[in-house]
Amino acid sequence: MPPAHPSTARRAVLSPTELDALCTKVRQFVDEVVIPREDMSIAHDIDALDRVTRELRAQATARGLVPPQLDPSLGGLGLSWRECARVFEQAGRSVLGPGALGCAAPDQPNIDTLLHLASPAQRERWLGPLVRGEIRSAFAMTEPAPGVGSDPRMIRTTARRDGDGWVLDGHKWFISGATGAAFALVVARAPEGVSWFLVETTNPGWELVRKIPSIDGFSHGGHGEIRLNGCRVPADALIGEVGRGFDYAQLRLEGARLFHCMRGTGLAARAMEIAQDYVSRRESFGAPLVDHQLVQAMAADAHIDLYAARLMTSDVARRLDEGESIRHYGSMAKVFVSEALNRVADRAAQMCGALGMSEDTPVSIILRKLRPFRIYDGASEVHRAAIGKRIFQKGVKP
Amino acid sequence: MPPAHPSTARRAVLSPTELDALCTKVRQFVDEVVIPREDMSIAHDIDALDRVTRELRAQATARGLVPPQLDPSLGGLGLSWRECARVFEQAGRSVLGPGALGCAAPDQPNIDTLLHLASPAQRERWLGPLVRGEIRSAFAMTEPAPGVGSDPRMIRTTARRDGDGWVLDGHKWFISGATGAAFALVVARAPEGVSWFLVETTNPGWELVRKIPSIDGFSHGGHGEIRLNGCRVPADALIGEVGRGFDYAQLRLEGARLFHCMRGTGLAARAMEIAQDYVSRRESFGAPLVDHQLVQAMAADAHIDLYAARLMTSDVARRLDEGESIRHYGSMAKVFVSEALNRVADRAAQMCGALGMSEDTPVSIILRKLRPFRIYDGASEVHRAAIGKRIFQKGVKP
Amino acid sequence: MPPAHPSTARRAVLSPTELDALCTKVRQFVDEVVIPREDMSIAHDIDALDRVTRELRAQATARGLVPPQLDPSLGGLGLSWRECARVFEQAGRSVLGPGALGCAAPDQPNIDTLLHLASPAQRERWLGPLVRGEIRSAFAMTEPAPGVGSDPRMIRTTARRDGDGWVLDGHKWFISGATGAAFALVVARAPEGVSWFLVETTNPGWELVRKIPSIDGFSHGGHGEIRLNGCRVPADALIGEVGRGFDYAQLRLEGARLFHCMRGTGLAARAMEIAQDYVSRRESFGAPLVDHQLVQAMAADAHIDLYAARLMTSDVARRLDEGESIRHYGSMAKVFVSEALNRVADRAAQMCGALGMSEDTPVSIILRKLRPFRIYDGASEVHRAAIGKRIFQKGVKP
Amino acid sequence: MPPAHPSTARRAVLSPTELDALCTKVRQFVDEVVIPREDMSIAHDIDALDRVTRELRAQATARGLVPPQLDPSLGGLGLSWRECARVFEQAGRSVLGPGALGCAAPDQPNIDTLLHLASPAQRERWLGPLVRGEIRSAFAMTEPAPGVGSDPRMIRTTARRDGDGWVLDGHKWFISGATGAAFALVVARAPEGVSWFLVETTNPGWELVRKIPSIDGFSHGGHGEIRLNGCRVPADALIGEVGRGFDYAQLRLEGARLFHCMRGTGLAARAMEIAQDYVSRRESFGAPLVDHQLVQAMAADAHIDLYAARLMTSDVARRLDEGESIRHYGSMAKVFVSEALNRVADRAAQMCGALGMSEDTPVSIILRKLRPFRIYDGASEVHRAAIGKRIFQKGVKP
Repeated sequence: MPPAHPSTARRAVLSPTELDALCTKVRQFVDEVVIPREDMSIAHDIDALDRVTRELRAQATARGLVPPQLDPSLGGLGLSWRECARVFEQAGRSVLGPGALGCAAPDQPNIDTLLHLASPAQRERWLGPLVRGEIRSAFAMTEPAPGVGSDPRMIRTTARRDGDGWVLDGHKWFISGATGAAFALVVARAPEGVSWFLVETTNPGWELVRKIPSIDGFSHGGHGEIRLNGCRVPADALIGEVGRGFDYAQLRLEGARLFHCMRGTGLAARAMEIAQDYVSRRESFGAPLVDHQLVQAMAADAHIDLYAARLMTSDVARRLDEGESIRHYGSMAKVFVSEALNRVADRAAQMCGALGMSEDTPVSIILRKLRPFRIYDGASEVHRAAIGKRIFQKGVKP
Repeated sequence: MPPAHPSTARRAVLSPTELDALCTKVRQFVDEVVIPREDMSIAHDIDALDRVTRELRAQATARGLVPPQLDPSLGGLGLSWRECARVFEQAGRSVLGPGALGCAAPDQPNIDTLLHLASPAQRERWLGPLVRGEIRSAFAMTEPAPGVGSDPRMIRTTARRDGDGWVLDGHKWFISGATGAAFALVVARAPEGVSWFLVETTNPGWELVRKIPSIDGFSHGGHGEIRLNGCRVPADALIGEVGRGFDYAQLRLEGARLFHCMRGTGLAARAMEIAQDYVSRRESFGAPLVDHQLVQAMAADAHIDLYAARLMTSDVARRLDEGESIRHYGSMAKVFVSEALNRVADRAAQMCGALGMSEDTPVSIILRKLRPFRIYDGASEVHRAAIGKRIFQKGVKP
Repeated sequence: MPPAHPSTARRAVLSPTELDALCTKVRQFVDEVVIPREDMSIAHDIDALDRVTRELRAQATARGLVPPQLDPSLGGLGLSWRECARVFEQAGRSVLGPGALGCAAPDQPNIDTLLHLASPAQRERWLGPLVRGEIRSAFAMTEPAPGVGSDPRMIRTTARRDGDGWVLDGHKWFISGATGAAFALVVARAPEGVSWFLVETTNPGWELVRKIPSIDGFSHGGHGEIRLNGCRVPADALIGEVGRGFDYAQLRLEGARLFHCMRGTGLAARAMEIAQDYVSRRESFGAPLVDHQLVQAMAADAHIDLYAARLMTSDVARRLDEGESIRHYGSMAKVFVSEALNRVADRAAQMCGALGMSEDTPVSIILRKLRPFRIYDGASEVHRAAIGKRIFQKGVKP
Repeated sequence: MPPAHPSTARRAVLSPTELDALCTKVRQFVDEVVIPREDMSIAHDIDALDRVTRELRAQATARGLVPPQLDPSLGGLGLSWRECARVFEQAGRSVLGPGALGCAAPDQPNIDTLLHLASPAQRERWLGPLVRGEIRSAFAMTEPAPGVGSDPRMIRTTARRDGDGWVLDGHKWFISGATGAAFALVVARAPEGVSWFLVETTNPGWELVRKIPSIDGFSHGGHGEIRLNGCRVPADALIGEVGRGFDYAQLRLEGARLFHCMRGTGLAARAMEIAQDYVSRRESFGAPLVDHQLVQAMAADAHIDLYAARLMTSDVARRLDEGESIRHYGSMAKVFVSEALNRVADRAAQMCGALGMSEDTPVSIILRKLRPFRIYDGASEVHRAAIGKRIFQKGVKP
């Protein structure tokens, strides 16, 4: 059986003009509706963030802006990944945008998982509410040391058979979306190998130990510490096939990285928009800041980085659309784009001076929000080593 | 009249062995007493931070750890700047350390100002409480656009004579230490030129508009927005001579940069200590993290950066001790050290992975705390241009 | 009148499969025929380089490998610029490759100029031999200080009318292709503005003062110092219209940069091929070099740089094919690609250790050959400032 | 038995004023006598370089400029290593300077070896002529793959006892100083372990296969490929003790790296002097080049790099003077200084534009000469891994 997701082999459904028009529409929605709702006081307030996100989602829907990545049968636009790259970027310009458009992690990849791996009953029960943004979900893989961090083989959470169900035990850490989730996809080690389970958070064996404070804000459901305490789940909690969880994780991450690239590009570009606007209105040392070559060079380098980042993201999306494996190119894009976007945000902050360090603009928030991208879904160092090994093992020509 | 501060031409007062012993003592104090009080919940809670700082200051005093930079007649150790570099670094390992030892900005340079520029009456009234940490002070120079940012010539706050006093009017922004300060040193444009005034914060013309949220935490008194509304001050509110405020600002900044280098080195080193400890206990991809060359290289580069940063800070401190102008070398050190420390903290975060993005260790806090150092006291770009100009104008040999 | 060259608006003429096949054929030709003729002893021997190039050109022609950028009516393949990007890269893998395929600078852009700007008589006389590689040509713009360097407005060579012809006077420096050229396109200041003239090198007013030794080798015709001493040329020596030379220069450079990106990518990739091969055969510190993470990371970063460089070059070529101005994107590509290729070659040298410093492989030659690309056709700093200015002046969104 | 060299624990012999005066004298000698003899035509002509070096050495001696590192009993100045750092830098400003002052590699460390490890007979015979510059010597460790490169444990050249002497067999590659050397110190594997032997190049078993062309020029004796073909040497050819060659190599390299830092700093500074001079005389885009911020920033960064490089070199020299092991700090300095100097030279080339790519100034020569410093005596990557390992194994605090 072929690996089931992220769903590959999509076709473009819009003409270039239609795609441009859609991007403009999303951009206007973000500028006019979403950005005015940005408010640092909800950065770490998960409930308030949920509330605002639901309101924005309703407004997006009212404007006809439905989840671009979902099939029309699910109420989406059915765009190809390459088209999504454009739209996700526009949504990503605000920390609230992906939630407003129903394309935020971890729900977006979780929906994909349910579509491709879940049983009809699971889909029946969870897919609708999740797609409509009525509930949220989590993805529970990472564990505290000495469990799984960058290396998925180190998983220590166990799943043992018990009657016709399973009992999960383990400790999970930094679980995105944990607080307020209706269910989680939990990665655990069954006797047959790493496997995925759908665990409802009302299960008495699911314990949300605490919310873990972190450098980034505006994360839907935050990052939670979880204990699975003899967590009994029924047989049909199993997602896909037993023992294939490692492959599923690889595929999920391959997609997840790419979608982060799309959304993150919007966020970094937004920081630079603010910075360009700031230096256009400010003087120093007898000249407008825009006349200082070191300011010009920071803007130039930001545009160059964004140019390369977009080309790379788009190229990997094209490969996904064409049904290619994106392991190698997606990994290269993840390293480049995550680092490029951090450089862009850093330059934006530097261009804004002390203002860029304050929270009077979102620039410092964006700087913080993008920093983990160099770590989440595989640290740059892990990818570099993996890319290098692949080059030598497979003799990849430069 | 020679420029009055930072106080130059100091002599070493400790033998190398005594200095080592003092550093060890400070380090132990920080490890045993200060670090256990670190608590993210007070990062932006100015009152709580004041409370903890006062308690720690008392404990430091009880252990004989008095402000290293102050003259023994003021209850300090009278160290040379080069000796201070070593002690400030040890204090700087915790965000609470400099406050605990009475060597935190902006009080430390404000005390220096009072010592050298204040009238006997000013000194009489303010110096003692400030030195003993009973009150805090602020330094009010920066203004919102189009006022003074990096370029001190753009000052727009005015000081006009009124009877035998002065009336100050203006708008200040990002004023370090503003909330809870007993007084501020205010930079304003008098008819004779830029001048400094001591303004009590109980003055009805002093308005603390708001606290400005920012990326860094644990700033004593935070960063405030201030309005001076027809703020009437007596004749003896003038600090030093009228019209010499620009020189004073230059000198103050030259010192301030250096002392930031000292404290910041401790903070960056602390982040790397935590990271080294973390990777020493963690495995990935079948090998301890310390056996991964990319981890080794991050540690190596951090040590190299810290090595260079310490040598440069120490060299500039030596020049200050010897009565040299540190304008050129201090500026070079500011650029190098601020960027090197940011690289060190960034690598520490990267080595810690997701943990480095959480607030379960202080690493992400340190990353945020050090980021503004590339901007405060002159952005790297401003310094680079100034250093370059000086090289060409004075024909400085490479 | 529309700008005349580089010829924009081209269409792809090959299917993807045909293009792949052509690239494979060029690659094999380069591997089997061209690379064996690489010989450091001819790096700076212009005559010998001409001789070898002519032999290789004949062999290429015999294999059906004709200049890819030329119209079939001129004996070429008539490829679109995007297709050329692929083929030029394959040709560029050897320092002798572009000459062998008839797509080396400065003849390639000079041919383009003649096609679009030359009079029928000029074309009649010069185009055929140049296209067939029987003669070489030069492009003479750069002057010694205080003349034109990066800034084309500083041109000091003059052209004054004399009877129905012109007299040129001036001093040119670092003129690519000068030694052995049959003619040069000379940029000079006429009363109506900067203009171009075709000057035959047999003209007694054309003096080749000397060959200028330089860091790069294998430059067809080297870099020459030229004096125009009362150099009388007929009326029809004028290329295009009088006074439009500045525009022509801009357009020429826009194309020239892009074609350098294409060829240079092949050269950098070649260095990395050699490096990958070397580390695959060598051990150090108890493990094959390919198992060292720092080696893996160098290879990974090289592949990432090449991936981005190719995407950017291809995207600018697409814009050229579609008739867009490439001023902005071409400038961004020039900065990024020239710096990326230098990083790739530097890593290749580093991976090869002392061997990379020797001339036992072409790696150090490639390192030297690519270094000037960060300067020729506009130094990175000049482009960064220009890109930044354009961003602020035109409000280019990030 | 304590490690025997480089000779540690030296004392300063000059007052600061005397040291300044000596540096000025060396600088003048270099400017007035040495630099005028720089001539690219001898860059790779070993005999001509020897001839010029001998002439310059005689002129240096006539001016009282004797080898600074040698004991007065040997005709030197007996400077401490820290003092040498200053003088070597001045000598290093020209590619011909170290030879002129008798402090060039590989003779300088070879003299040190003879002084500390050679038998009285060896010293008697070789030391005088070598010290006086009448002969040259080589150091033969590196081998072609799969022999010793960065990893000294991989040595394959063998030494077996034969009667009361030894027979050496092996293949050496990139042997500095090989052509024209009177003798070589050869590293080979004896049954008791790695050992050193003094081999006269007139020995019929010593074969200079060829001179290896390389990116750097002006290397005394070039880089040679050597075969030892049953090379019989007497018992007293052994240098130091049998089996201790690995320790000797470590110590030699520790010193060698430091002395390269000293000389290289002069060379990089020289390139920047030329660049500063060039941009001071040139205009572009309507302003003197020195008014362009990007030029100012390149100069500033060069001065910052040189500032840090000098402090680090001087600090390691101080540790050597004080008898400390410099393994760790010397390794950090090697990485930092070699990379910093390459950055400085690269910026100098960039500031000079096309002139920096030509050989009309020594800038491109210096760029090429410094490039291998990131590889010779341990590539940066090898040092980074070693520094990192040491940090983790010994728990070195950051």
